[in-house]
Amino acid sequence: MQNLPTYDDVVAAAGRIEGHAHRTPVMRSRTVDTDFGAEVFFKCENLQRMGAFKFRGAFNALSRFDEQQRRAGVVAFSSGNHAQAIALSASLLGIPSTIVMPLDAPASKVAATKGYGGNVITYDRYTEDREAIGRGLAEKHGMTLIPPFDHPDVLAGQGTAAKELFDEVGPLDALFVCLGGGGLLSGCSLAARALSPDCKVYGVEPAAGDDGQQSFRSGKRVHIDTPKTIADGAQTQSLGQITFEIIRRNVDDILTATDEQLVDAMRFYASRMKIVVEPTGCLSFAAAREMKASLRGKRVGIIISGGNVDLERFCSLIGN
Amino acid sequence: MQNLPTYDDVVAAAGRIEGHAHRTPVMRSRTVDTDFGAEVFFKCENLQRMGAFKFRGAFNALSRFDEQQRRAGVVAFSSGNHAQAIALSASLLGIPSTIVMPLDAPASKVAATKGYGGNVITYDRYTEDREAIGRGLAEKHGMTLIPPFDHPDVLAGQGTAAKELFDEVGPLDALFVCLGGGGLLSGCSLAARALSPDCKVYGVEPAAGDDGQQSFRSGKRVHIDTPKTIADGAQTQSLGQITFEIIRRNVDDILTATDEQLVDAMRFYASRMKIVVEPTGCLSFAAAREMKASLRGKRVGIIISGGNVDLERFCSLIGN
Repeated sequence: MQNLPTYDDVVAAAGRIEGHAHRTPVMRSRTVDTDFGAEVFFKCENLQRMGAFKFRGAFNALSRFDEQQRRAGVVAFSSGNHAQAIALSASLLGIPSTIVMPLDAPASKVAATKGYGGNVITYDRYTEDREAIGRGLAEKHGMTLIPPFDHPDVLAGQGTAAKELFDEVGPLDALFVCLGGGGLLSGCSLAARALSPDCKVYGVEPAAGDDGQQSFRSGKRVHIDTPKTIADGAQTQSLGQITFEIIRRNVDDILTATDEQLVDAMRFYASRMKIVVEPTGCLSFAAAREMKASLRGKRVGIIISGGNVDLERFCSLIGN
Repeated sequence: MQNLPTYDDVVAAAGRIEGHAHRTPVMRSRTVDTDFGAEVFFKCENLQRMGAFKFRGAFNALSRFDEQQRRAGVVAFSSGNHAQAIALSASLLGIPSTIVMPLDAPASKVAATKGYGGNVITYDRYTEDREAIGRGLAEKHGMTLIPPFDHPDVLAGQGTAAKELFDEVGPLDALFVCLGGGGLLSGCSLAARALSPDCKVYGVEPAAGDDGQQSFRSGKRVHIDTPKTIADGAQTQSLGQITFEIIRRNVDDILTATDEQLVDAMRFYASRMKIVVEPTGCLSFAAAREMKASLRGKRVGIIISGGNVDLERFCSLIGN
């Protein structure tokens, strides 16, 4: 594969999203520092616009549309954060957006996507193929399809999260990044290699869906059935083609976290750090805690991917 | 009353707490800005050390101890954030601390106070007088008693929260501050008068415990029975002598918020801004939302006082 995105693309993305995306805060916790015997820096993408890092990649991708693409509009299929990120970015850029969502998507997510200006088209997830619908719309109306992670502009945008972290705190010894399809991890690994070459970069995915770990260790992309996990943002069946190529070159290892560890981390974030983090966003910290003995004396970055969890679900999870 | 604290005392406090207290972030929400038609700045003291602004005043007060006071130690009576603030500050400064807490205080709060290094003495709240116990310990052992709000060094320390806000965002048109005994409000009003003279300063207390509003409007301190409200940090029976004198000179009005409005604000903070705020910390925003029509086009500051709420309680409150 040629023409993989590079750190230059992350820098260009940072210029495009400036003033549109939040420069999210980096939080510290003395409790964590004491517990780890380390300096730990939390990059809070749960405090990003629409509640997740996805805004970065979506806005970057749509910013590069030419005049014709802008007029025809964008189409995306997603029931999660990517849908809202595309709808919001398109609205800010004056581009019409069409989001293909399952008929049984939570009413709150449909409402949020419409609230951000997206034209929602529903489909029956048991009888219809969302990709076919999305591609059909794209062909018929000349719309541009933006996939959730396997796209150079999307992953370059996601990498700005790590770029901001390194710009603010300097080089790190280890960086933990939440992993689903690999957009955030691949983009952040490009930033790490450029700004902190000796930093170990770890992707963390749900233990129930370890396709990334299998792929990384075997050297070829592994597909799995949709995993059962509370980390709904990481229920991907495989890494992307592009994201995998970047990850295999730039990442040191792929780790996993169990649902129980995610709930523990979610509880810690809320009770001690006073922030709401969605289960997927807890992956990075959950894995770092498991290997804290080897992080003693180090400078550690934790990327929190998002905070979009219904409060009812949040409470039912931490109540267990 | 003479020798009331001034803004100079707030500046001196800021110098003492620097490097010990967090400089807490100022958060924005596009949703709130759009809803208000205003620029709204949230000063997040829920992200302060030990989870509340109280650390500022406690650390400032203990920093001023002379050698003899340091050796004899500090005593405080509190079942809430002040106890933990004193225990932590004393521990950081190498001063022994004794905290008088009710026998039936939540185990988590007793554990947190002990965890911060406090020597906890319990009393029976139905048969014993905590003030008498505190004063007895102070006299017998030469300890210095630090009250939770009615103390010049305590309130000057709390004022650094507003000082940081104005230093970061510039002058404001209105500032909303949570109100219990008046330590935070009086200190913040000193900073507002100095740094943003035209800023309207509002204290906000629970509707069920409107002693502050009665006192402010009648011009003399009113005492009430302990109010029934979910805002457990504002269940005070009266303003302090010193805090009242500062408040009557520098504050524009005292507003109130119902428990229902507090729960609404708490839910908004968690679901849209991804932060955990305790009921008392929701007072300021709850009142601002009620008068948002009059805030259109303005620059508005909201001081969030703290985030110390048990997750079980948090979930039971927002579940209603």
